[in-house]
This record gives sequence, structure tokens and C-alpha cells, in this order.
Amino acid sequence: MASDQLSATFAALADPTRRAILSRLITGEASVTELAEPFEMSLPAVTKHLKVLQRAGLISQSREAQWRPCKLQARPMREAAEWMEPYRRHWEQRFDRLDDFLRELTRKGEIPARKKK
Amino acid sequence: MASDQLSATFAALADPTRRAILSRLITGEASVTELAEPFEMSLPAVTKHLKVLQRAGLISQSREAQWRPCKLQARPMREAAEWMEPYRRHWEQRFDRLDDFLRELTRKGEIPARKKK
Repeated sequence: MASDQLSATFAALADPTRRAILSRLITGEASVTELAEPFEMSLPAVTKHLKVLQRAGLISQSREAQWRPCKLQARPMREAAEWMEPYRRHWEQRFDRLDDFLRELTRKGEIPARKKK
Repeated sequence: MASDQLSATFAALADPTRRAILSRLITGEASVTELAEPFEMSLPAVTKHLKVLQRAGLISQSREAQWRPCKLQARPMREAAEWMEPYRRHWEQRFDRLDDFLRELTRKGEIPARKKK
């Protein structure tokens, strides 16, 4: 397991089953059996994925209720999303520049202007 | 290497050296030697990290210039950031609810109101 939080978060997210489990938990708490249902997977295999998510701090499991529901912990995910923000902006800026370039070509008549509906 | 793009992106991001390389590339293109400089690491070790980033589509390496600069490819990162969006909102909504709860307690006089500066 990665020693820093960001690495642990990204490593936990690098699996489609674990991402599907998180998607289910965004709608509310669920037991391990409920979480295992949609997957063609043994309960121990699903439990292993849950342990990875738990160690990364992305989910927690209640010790109180008898059905021990799992719950989403969105904080590490928010930190990861914040880390990504500059790259997202970088991508959008590139598209803005492309847009300016196309506009300039249109102005010069090098490409035809798009028809307005 | 993970077969789906999201898993490949997250797996590539699950390492502090690879994230540092991406942070460097956000400021512009760089050669492998330039990228290796800040790390106490052999050139082959850095090259291995670059290969992971390249396979995940997060960077590309020019074949034209003699110094073969590496370049950021932000699109997969943007897709990963979009996948995270609902979790970010989930977190913010939880904080909004906590805020409403504290406001309600303040209104009832159960906790003192914050002083205005």
C-alpha cells in the first residue's frame, strides 16, 4: 500500500470493481452482501476490494449495527480532485486556444463560417 | 497495465515521482534528462516511470526534435477529474448540511453566534 494519501487514493481508484462499489455507496450505506450482489465475484474477492478502499480511507464500516454497513468517505477523493484541478484547466486552456485559432482562420476567410441556426 | 483508460490513469497517478513529473510538464515540454534532474534516481528508473505515464496516455514523447521532449497530454486526467465530480459534490453537500445544522443550533441559542469582525 502506498505510504502517502494521494497515492493510496489513486491506487484504490485504479480498479473498475472498486469504482463501481464507490458509485453504489454514493447513493447511501450498504452491507457487504449488498455491495457484492452486482458482481460475478466471490464474497472474499469483494471483501478484499473493500479492504483496499478502507485502508485508503475511501470507505468506513460501521461497528455498531449488526449488518455493519459500509459508508463513503469522500474527503480523500476531494483532495485527489483538487490535485487534478490544474491539469483540467491546462486542458481547457488548450481548447480555448484552438477555438481562438479557428475563429482567426474564419475571420481571414480561410475556412467558411459556421451557419447560424 | 489496466485495460480500461480510467484504471490506467489512476494507476499511473498512484506514485509521487510520476505526479512530480506531471507537475513539471504542466509548465512546458522537457527532455528525459531534465525530468530526471530533481530526483535521486537513476536515468533507467525515471525512464520506467515515463513509460508508465506514456502507456497511460498522460504524456507523449516527440520523435522529431533530437532532444525528444516529453509533453503533457491532459485529456485522460480531465476524464478522471470528471469521474470524481459526483464525489466532490457529495462531500460539499455534507458540509452544507453541517453548516445548516450549526446555524440552527446558533438560532436556538444552543451555541453562541460567531462574532462579526
